[in-house]
Amino acid sequence: MEPKPAAPGPCPGDFRVAEAAAAAAAASSLNPAEARAEPGRRAPSVAAVLPAGGSGERMGVPTPKQFCPILERPLISYTLQALERVCWIKDIVVAVTGENMEAMKGIIQKYKHQRISLVEAGVTRHRSIFNGLRALAEDQPNSKLSKPEVVIIHDAVRPFVEEDVLLKVVTAAKEHGAAGAVRPLVSTVISPSADGRLDHSLERARHRASEMPQAFLFDVIYEAYQQCSDYDLEFGTECLQLALKYGHVNAKLVEGSPDLWKVTYKRDLYAAESIIKERTSQHICIIMDTKEDENHVGHHLEEILKNELNHVEVTSGALCPAGRDLKQIILEQCYNYVCVNVMSSDFEETQRLLNMLEESNLSIFYPVVVISVYFLDYKSVHFDQKVENLMQIREYAKEVRKRNILLCGLLIYYPQDEQKLQASLREGATIITTLIKERNSGLVGQLLIA
Amino acid sequence: MEPKPAAPGPCPGDFRVAEAAAAAAAASSLNPAEARAEPGRRAPSVAAVLPAGGSGERMGVPTPKQFCPILERPLISYTLQALERVCWIKDIVVAVTGENMEAMKGIIQKYKHQRISLVEAGVTRHRSIFNGLRALAEDQPNSKLSKPEVVIIHDAVRPFVEEDVLLKVVTAAKEHGAAGAVRPLVSTVISPSADGRLDHSLERARHRASEMPQAFLFDVIYEAYQQCSDYDLEFGTECLQLALKYGHVNAKLVEGSPDLWKVTYKRDLYAAESIIKERTSQHICIIMDTKEDENHVGHHLEEILKNELNHVEVTSGALCPAGRDLKQIILEQCYNYVCVNVMSSDFEETQRLLNMLEESNLSIFYPVVVISVYFLDYKSVHFDQKVENLMQIREYAKEVRKRNILLCGLLIYYPQDEQKLQASLREGATIITTLIKERNSGLVGQLLIA
Repeated sequence: MEPKPAAPGPCPGDFRVAEAAAAAAAASSLNPAEARAEPGRRAPSVAAVLPAGGSGERMGVPTPKQFCPILERPLISYTLQALERVCWIKDIVVAVTGENMEAMKGIIQKYKHQRISLVEAGVTRHRSIFNGLRALAEDQPNSKLSKPEVVIIHDAVRPFVEEDVLLKVVTAAKEHGAAGAVRPLVSTVISPSADGRLDHSLERARHRASEMPQAFLFDVIYEAYQQCSDYDLEFGTECLQLALKYGHVNAKLVEGSPDLWKVTYKRDLYAAESIIKERTSQHICIIMDTKEDENHVGHHLEEILKNELNHVEVTSGALCPAGRDLKQIILEQCYNYVCVNVMSSDFEETQRLLNMLEESNLSIFYPVVVISVYFLDYKSVHFDQKVENLMQIREYAKEVRKRNILLCGLLIYYPQDEQKLQASLREGATIITTLIKERNSGLVGQLLIA
Repeated sequence: MEPKPAAPGPCPGDFRVAEAAAAAAAASSLNPAEARAEPGRRAPSVAAVLPAGGSGERMGVPTPKQFCPILERPLISYTLQALERVCWIKDIVVAVTGENMEAMKGIIQKYKHQRISLVEAGVTRHRSIFNGLRALAEDQPNSKLSKPEVVIIHDAVRPFVEEDVLLKVVTAAKEHGAAGAVRPLVSTVISPSADGRLDHSLERARHRASEMPQAFLFDVIYEAYQQCSDYDLEFGTECLQLALKYGHVNAKLVEGSPDLWKVTYKRDLYAAESIIKERTSQHICIIMDTKEDENHVGHHLEEILKNELNHVEVTSGALCPAGRDLKQIILEQCYNYVCVNVMSSDFEETQRLLNMLEESNLSIFYPVVVISVYFLDYKSVHFDQKVENLMQIREYAKEVRKRNILLCGLLIYYPQDEQKLQASLREGATIITTLIKERNSGLVGQLLIA
């Protein structure tokens, strides 16, 4: 199962709790030495610096890549969300260029990001990081920042960083002075000669790609930046190298997951969008307007959804009075709701759900998909009449679209013949999964027919 | 403008024509030395070897990545398509494992791939390539293969290779003995010590990632493979290194485009799918059932599509008798058709289009999207009646779906009020672009309403 999308909210643990959990996990694994926490150690104070001054020239688009939208939200907001949900990171310092400062403030306000301080970016990545470190080091009036023991350096364009690897690099940095995530090389690395021909190739297994996050004892990296040359600041690409050259610290290398990759090209934006869509599609909540213990068509639909979808959890329950508390499901960040109306053909149940979703702020981070399902029995109601009633959904959809909720209607044909009914339900399930996986606003308000 | 998706068909040029075109382009560029063709030179005979025996363990899925489907077609078929449309490549030798041999034959048959020979893959990449070279070198009875002067080595999982870069590596290989595409490094490369700590980091600007395609004088690379050690065959990753070590040839390095990247992780499959969807969405053909010179609602829709979409070419024309010949548009591989029915509310025009598409084999490679558009004037026809008429589209859609054509209906409300009409048309245009960009089979047969 993929990890859930990051979300803010009450942060249950702190660094020591996280470390103890990691130690327990390590103790039960085959290689307990790797992440063992020494008992009684003091938890370090931790801050993060995020250089975000890049121009994104490799992307081939005018917007710097950290501000490119994914599902209408800027990439950097996903990265901030991933860091701020780790509650033992006390401060997050972001370095942005003057021209993007106002836009960045707008992003922080819109998505309610917390514990963020902004500093001016330098003309290179190293200068931006240096500015961020300086803001943490100096006792400035009006500054709420204080010097941390360990500082994480991460990239604005690596949105899928998990608490796990952050904990590993911080723990290793506390012990070794510096640490960074690495990955196996995908391509062989070669060294060209001056005339553009192969001089030699490097053995792939003996080298690693240096990724992010990295972490440092604050004094080690800050002193390295203070000592390093203008050439380093202009042309250097590697913080671990500065810690080695000026702090004589051989950084501990931590194997990271593939998800740590850097969004560099346009195709990486596509990949990031697909990953986010996949993660937000994992969990579907089905709400019935009838009691759970009956053998009705809503339950047949539920069974098909459970059978046809891989890795999708289906939570069933009537809104009122029985079933799991919907508020709890919303709190657990479920982004997909199928409102199955077996008894009625009005929008009351859907409206109640929409009200709860709007109150919850759930859709600030990701578009929430709501599909309101109805059944059509030709014997009792005529097709045209049903369709005309349900077309009201267009107005509801326009309204909730403003709050990032994507509402569609689905009318499923309900014949007496059992086989035909199964075919209708399967078709309905296909439409539901398509709408959830695509999460596209272009079709909101449509009444689809299965 | 992005390049068009590759497609087979009559191949207009040969190697010398392509080389001359490249030379002409180079002569008019700032750096003519780089691709200049010497006049009067003989065109080399060229074959390609494609190792496709990998297990795809990095992907985290049971199917080897070269067989993973993208829009329901295996990745390797896209790569074969990219190679076979380059008509100066005489033979394409693919190395697949015994267990995938039958599946591979099925792919070649289903997608009508040409000039392909299959050989058994070895247990490593180098052994697979060696098997491919051996098939080209040896005079086997019943073999239609002959030894080429230059051999291209490419990966089955790099589907976006263009003729341009193939030409460059082949030309450079003919001159220098070996050549390969390279890309700038995205991450800094580091060398770890035995205890998992940083030993040193490499200067990023002084190194390159070695990508594919590569090309070699056949004798150079075949002799290198014959001489090289079992250790090389087991653990080596770089053909250019073999040419250097055993053939004493310093390969010419050719800067490649970002699109040459290797599909390695699941996110790369997502990226490849998005790139293919983007490329097949570039060109829309609009077909009207009325004359072109009238100021009617169909033309308003066309104007909105032209204004709202970036990089989308709109081709208009009545099917019969005026307008550009639809057959020509189909031949030029347009994968999106909007059939605008201003005069009638039947399916005749759409049916005629569908027949032509089915005859053309256009949808073998990519799903073709067809949207049949109707208008609803409440004054003359009642909504219910129109909807019920148009619901027949579900049956047509099921039928053409079998041939990879995705048919939807779109009913656009046509009020007298000019502003309201513009709003309806804009909504219609949004639905059209959504259906074209998503290219998803889950919604075929739907009648959408704007």
